Parts: sequence; structure tokens; C-alpha cells
Amino acid sequence: MDTSVASGLRVDRARLLDRLERLAQHGARADGGVCRLALTDADRAGRDQVVAWMRELGLDVVVDAIGNVRGTRAGREAGPPVMTGSHVDTVATGGRYDGSYGVVAGLEVVAALNDAGVETRRPLCVAFFTGEEGARFAPDMLGSLVYVGGLPLEEALAVRDAGGAVLGDELRRCGYAGDAPVGAPEVHAFVELHVEQGPVLEAEGVTIGAVRNLQGISWQEIAIEGQANHAGTTPMRLRHDAGYAAAAVAHFLRGLTRRLGGDQLATCGVIDLEPNLINVIAQRARLTADLRNTDEDALRRAEAELAAFLEQLARDEGVTVSTRRLARFEPVVFDAGVADTIARVAGELGHSVRDATSGAGHDAQMLARVCPAAMIFVPSIGGISHNPREDTAPEHLAAGADVLLHTLLELAR
Amino acid sequence: MDTSVASGLRVDRARLLDRLERLAQHGARADGGVCRLALTDADRAGRDQVVAWMRELGLDVVVDAIGNVRGTRAGREAGPPVMTGSHVDTVATGGRYDGSYGVVAGLEVVAALNDAGVETRRPLCVAFFTGEEGARFAPDMLGSLVYVGGLPLEEALAVRDAGGAVLGDELRRCGYAGDAPVGAPEVHAFVELHVEQGPVLEAEGVTIGAVRNLQGISWQEIAIEGQANHAGTTPMRLRHDAGYAAAAVAHFLRGLTRRLGGDQLATCGVIDLEPNLINVIAQRARLTADLRNTDEDALRRAEAELAAFLEQLARDEGVTVSTRRLARFEPVVFDAGVADTIARVAGELGHSVRDATSGAGHDAQMLARVCPAAMIFVPSIGGISHNPREDTAPEHLAAGADVLLHTLLELAR
Repeated sequence: MDTSVASGLRVDRARLLDRLERLAQHGARADGGVCRLALTDADRAGRDQVVAWMRELGLDVVVDAIGNVRGTRAGREAGPPVMTGSHVDTVATGGRYDGSYGVVAGLEVVAALNDAGVETRRPLCVAFFTGEEGARFAPDMLGSLVYVGGLPLEEALAVRDAGGAVLGDELRRCGYAGDAPVGAPEVHAFVELHVEQGPVLEAEGVTIGAVRNLQGISWQEIAIEGQANHAGTTPMRLRHDAGYAAAAVAHFLRGLTRRLGGDQLATCGVIDLEPNLINVIAQRARLTADLRNTDEDALRRAEAELAAFLEQLARDEGVTVSTRRLARFEPVVFDAGVADTIARVAGELGHSVRDATSGAGHDAQMLARVCPAAMIFVPSIGGISHNPREDTAPEHLAAGADVLLHTLLELAR
Repeated sequence: MDTSVASGLRVDRARLLDRLERLAQHGARADGGVCRLALTDADRAGRDQVVAWMRELGLDVVVDAIGNVRGTRAGREAGPPVMTGSHVDTVATGGRYDGSYGVVAGLEVVAALNDAGVETRRPLCVAFFTGEEGARFAPDMLGSLVYVGGLPLEEALAVRDAGGAVLGDELRRCGYAGDAPVGAPEVHAFVELHVEQGPVLEAEGVTIGAVRNLQGISWQEIAIEGQANHAGTTPMRLRHDAGYAAAAVAHFLRGLTRRLGGDQLATCGVIDLEPNLINVIAQRARLTADLRNTDEDALRRAEAELAAFLEQLARDEGVTVSTRRLARFEPVVFDAGVADTIARVAGELGHSVRDATSGAGHDAQMLARVCPAAMIFVPSIGGISHNPREDTAPEHLAAGADVLLHTLLELAR
């Protein structure tokens, strides 16, 4: 049997780029980036745009109770669909392709199949999931986590953002509190196309990454309570300085990655001090620790070392330290069959290809709990991501969509 | 010649405490502290209260162009007054006595002299100065600095707060853009009564500190520009993490105080990150460094070491670092004659007394540029200051006011 690649079917690059451009207008930042925090007005506008395209393409659109949206193209047979998709929400300082690319490329696959009059045996489904970034509502990948039964719906609907807004209320406000049950239907296989968000593919001059695994993620919020006091009259040895303690944690995390080496990552992206005044020793600090590793044992070691450091710090500085887990996902190994298909299809299309690891969390890791799943990466220029300067070459955007097209065809035939 | 102490004249403790209590109602926090940031509505209310008391006591009230207020009680002779006073603004998490105590005690001295029908040879003047804390408008001690000619009036009026509000506008809004020229009249001597804001007097069981000198202060704002990127996909060695760099500065400052030892203090009270998200490496950081030392050479050494560290940090992390000086005051040696008088009067009143150093900046250090000046300290419970829990025992508040009363009488006789 010939593979589908030999048919000569390809995506329409101009139409793909045009849709990406139009989606990027919703929540556009003056610096060329995008701010579509989950369930804000900008996110709603982006969702409405994608849903409108789904309807234009003849997809059967369903919104579930956590706001995940899926558009299905019927197959010759009923039964579990082959699904692709990603998310349309972004971080506050987001780029144009993170998430959007996977959704828009899924629509382009459907458009190409429609144009060519190609039927598939299994249904094809293009989905986007609620609140993947976690930048507004924690944890990240919230919509897909609920979808696969990893977080009870009621709990997810009750999550609040930093300003106290409740996710369920925001979902209703946006018109995306759907009535479809979460988690149905069964999925035959899932493929997510995404920009790499890292420097590896570009550095090696490779166009396609067949993503075979994904780092584990540990997110904690660390709250430190010290004693506010005058910066000019309090001897150093008598201080209980929450600000210094917060800085010491961030400093420790850097040292930890050096000591553990390998793939260990650690980031302190949030530091808030109170009262945050130049001449007052901080009473309180709130900071976050983002730890990632492809190896679960190593990740646990990092968590344990951080916990031990926090205990020692509390003793040394006379501060109280409490931690709250915001997210914890074990490393994921994707389905070898799906990843093999991606690699083979990419090769047949004439693209350079290599196995890849995802450093970021993705909806695909949630879907991997319930069906065979893997991901396709294309290069990020300069490895830059979560930044308005995030970019990918047009030929790479088209190449990834072609690989997605034929991977889905193989899985759905 | 007998000293004035022998006259038996004392302040009215109940009246002193009552005025302190009433002033603390303006800008009162739920936790018992006070928030009267300079030239806010709360500060205006506090100012209005003090001015009303000045008028009740028969003082001649003058407001100058930077909003400093002085109320003068005529002497038998004209000529330069003996001045006392402090400030009524507070930090956001302030206590009830920092600044207010010196102003209210000055009024109580006038009240006691009025009640007893005591005339002085020189005029007596009770003053409060604008924006001593620097918590809203930098530099700190702004009003008294302008008063002694250390900062041009126009420059001071143009200072902006973090929200962009202009000091001159806020002064007009509050009704304290006075028409008196800044800096007149000449002052014969200046005495400021203040809570210690540190732990020394309490620890040694001493009631009165005769303050003979004051630390030098160096305030800088440090801005760091790195590169925002994804916390999960950016290898540690490729990061330009402004958040880590900020933490490294705060961590360095602590080590610096250990290495320099002596009286060196260093505080990082402000840390702001952008975008301040858990899974984004920070693009920008803004933090403050507050360095203090009683020895000017040592303070310069600390500044030089910080500058060298920042240069190295910029190279190591691939970030750009810029600094902006917010305030710089050399250590001050107060007038020995005035401090001797304070110590002698305190002893004659039966109070324990010791020489003291001020760790905080005070308006008295500005007045010391133009006239003999010194300060009186009373104990702070637990050494706590710039904190709603700041407190001083009532008997110590009364003792300090008695020492102020007779010190002023000696200087004005």
C-alpha cells in the first residue's frame, strides 16, 4: 500500500499563513506579540474566530463544560476520531504561534482534504483546549487535564485567578460554558503540532522534530513571612527579611541546576514583596518555583533538595515558609507508533527529521493518558518563546502542517 | 544659674498621649498602624489636624512653597528661633509614633509653657517637613533638604511618584503649596525628638538617647534587562534571566554586609519582575539597594563593591544593568553642645541616658547643615519600626517630651 504522501496532497501555505495572521490580531500587542490570557475578552475573540472557521469548513462543533471546543469531520465509519489540536490562549507576553499554530494547521488539514474531496475512514477532529498556559488559571493544561479525567470538573470551575475571578464565571461570561459532557468521545489517536519553543531544531538545521517524550513539571508557590522593620536601624543579625529569603531561594535554584546538571531546569518567574518599599525590610514574599526534568527520579531529588533548603532557610532567617503545589506532572513518554509515523511521513515528504523532547507542557501529554499520542515540532527562530519575538519561518510552518496532514491521514485510513 | 529642670515644669502626659492617639486616627490601618504616605488624603488630614492644634495654641503658622509647616511662639526678643519638629507622613505600613511623636511633643512643650505662663528669650518654633519618609516621593527628607538649600525647589516640585503623580500637583491638591519662601528664617538651634526605631536603648534598659551622629545613606534603583523566554524549553546556559539577576544582587548584598562587617547595613526592599509569571523567564527586573554606614569611607567601599558586582553580573548573565541614584547623604555628626545639653537635662530629670547613633535618616540631619542640631531618642519596644506594631511605652513618651521641653528652654533662654 502506498503511503498518503505519494498522493501529492499538500496544505495551502498562503491560506495557512493568512489564518495565522488573522488569529494573531485578536489580543495583538503593540510589539507584534499576542496577549490572550485564558477567558479574557481577547481569548473569547480568538475562540470565536476559530469556531467561525470550523463552521465554514463544515465541522460539527461541540463545546464541553470546561470550554474545550472540538470540530469533527465525519469519516466513512463512525467510531473514535483521530484528533489534533492545541490551544488559543497565550501568556501575557506571548507570541503568534504558540498554540495557535497547532489549531490553525488542523483547520488547514481539513480545508486541504475538503478541497481535494478526500474521505477518511475514521472521523477527524480538530480541538482547542481551555487554559493551556496556566498564566491566568493554574494548573496549566487545565482544559485537557479535565478532558482526560485528571481533575474533577467542579474543582476546575472553582479555580480563581490572581484577582479572585472564578474560572466558571469567566467561562459563562465568554459564552464557552458548553453543555457537552467533558471527556467524551473516545479518541483513536492524538497528534499535536507545535513550535519547538527551544533552540535545538534550529541549531541542528532540522525541520521536523518527532516528539517522543516530555519533561515532568513541578510548580510550587512559596510564601515567606518575616518581620517588617526599618532598613536603617535594624542590625543585620536581628533581621527576619522575607525579601532576602526570597532572593536566597532564587539563588539556590540556580545553584541546584548546576549541581544536578543533566536536564534539570529551575525558574523563579514570580517574586512579590510586601510592602515593597526601599527602606522597609520586607514582611512577606511570594515567589514561584518551576522545576522540570525528563527524569522523574531526578525531578523528585530536585524537589527534595528545595524542601530541605526552605527548612534550613526558615531556621537561619527566623522566617516562616509555606509552600503550595500549583501543578505536578510526571514526565511523559509518547506513543512510539505515532512518533514513528510522524518521523516516517516527514522523511517521505523530504524534510530533515530528528527525535525530540518537549521541555514545555502540552495538551498532548494529557491526551496521552487516554490514547496513543505524540507531537510534531518545527523550529523556533532563536529558540525564543513566551515572548512577542517568538517566530518560525513560513516554510517551516508549511512543512509542519504537511507532516500533520499525512500523519493524520495515515492514522485515519 | 539654675537649669530649667529645677522649676518643676513637666509636660502633661495624658494630653500628649491623647494628641498622639488622635493624630494616629488619620490614615489608621485596621492592624493598628498608620498609612499616611506623603501628600495623600490621609497625610492632608494629619497635616490639617496639626495645623488646627498649632492655631489653638496661639502659634503663628506659616506654610512654605514645599509644604513645610512651622508654627512660631514669639520670644521676648526677635531673632532666629529655637526649632523642634519632625514629620507627619509615614511609610505605607507605618507605626503611630515615627515622626508624629516629635511633632506632637513639640506642641505639648508649647502647651506646657502656655499653661505655666513661661516666656522664653528666643522664639520657639514647632515644624513639620514634607515627605520625610521617601516612601512615595524620593529622596527621603525631601522637605527639609529643600529647606536647607540642598535641593532646588523647582526640582523637588517636579518629582514623581511610582504612579506618575507630580509632587507639586499633589501639594496644590492638598492645599499645602504655601506662599512663604523656603528656608527663611535662620534657625538658632534645632532639636528633633524621635522614637529610636532600633533595639539598642531597650536592650540596655536606657530611657534617653542623646544622638550624636547619624549614618550615611546610599539609595539606588537597579534596573535589569534580560530576555523573556519559556521556562521549560530554554536550557539554563542559554538564559538571560532578569529575575535570577535581581535575586543575585539581593543575595550579594547580604554577603557584602558580612564581609564588610562593622555597621554596614544593606537592604533590598523592592523587587519587581516583568512579566512576573511562573513559566516565563523574567525580561526585566527593578530592585532597590539601601546601603548605610556611619563611616563615609566604608560606605563608599560598599558602593564600589556593589558596582563591581553588577558589572560582573551583567557579563555573566548576558543582561544589561543600569543604576539610578535615588538618594545619597554622607554620615552626619551632630552638634556636641546641643547633644551635651540633651544628655545633661535628661540626667537632671532623673532619666538614664546614653550617647546614640541614628541608623535612620531624619530631618535633623538636614537642619544640621545650617544650625547646631541634635536629636533625642526614646526606646522602641522590640526595636520594631516601619511596622504597624511599632510601639513605645507611655512613660518613655512622656520622658522624651520632658527632655525636649527643658532642652528647648535651655537653648532659648
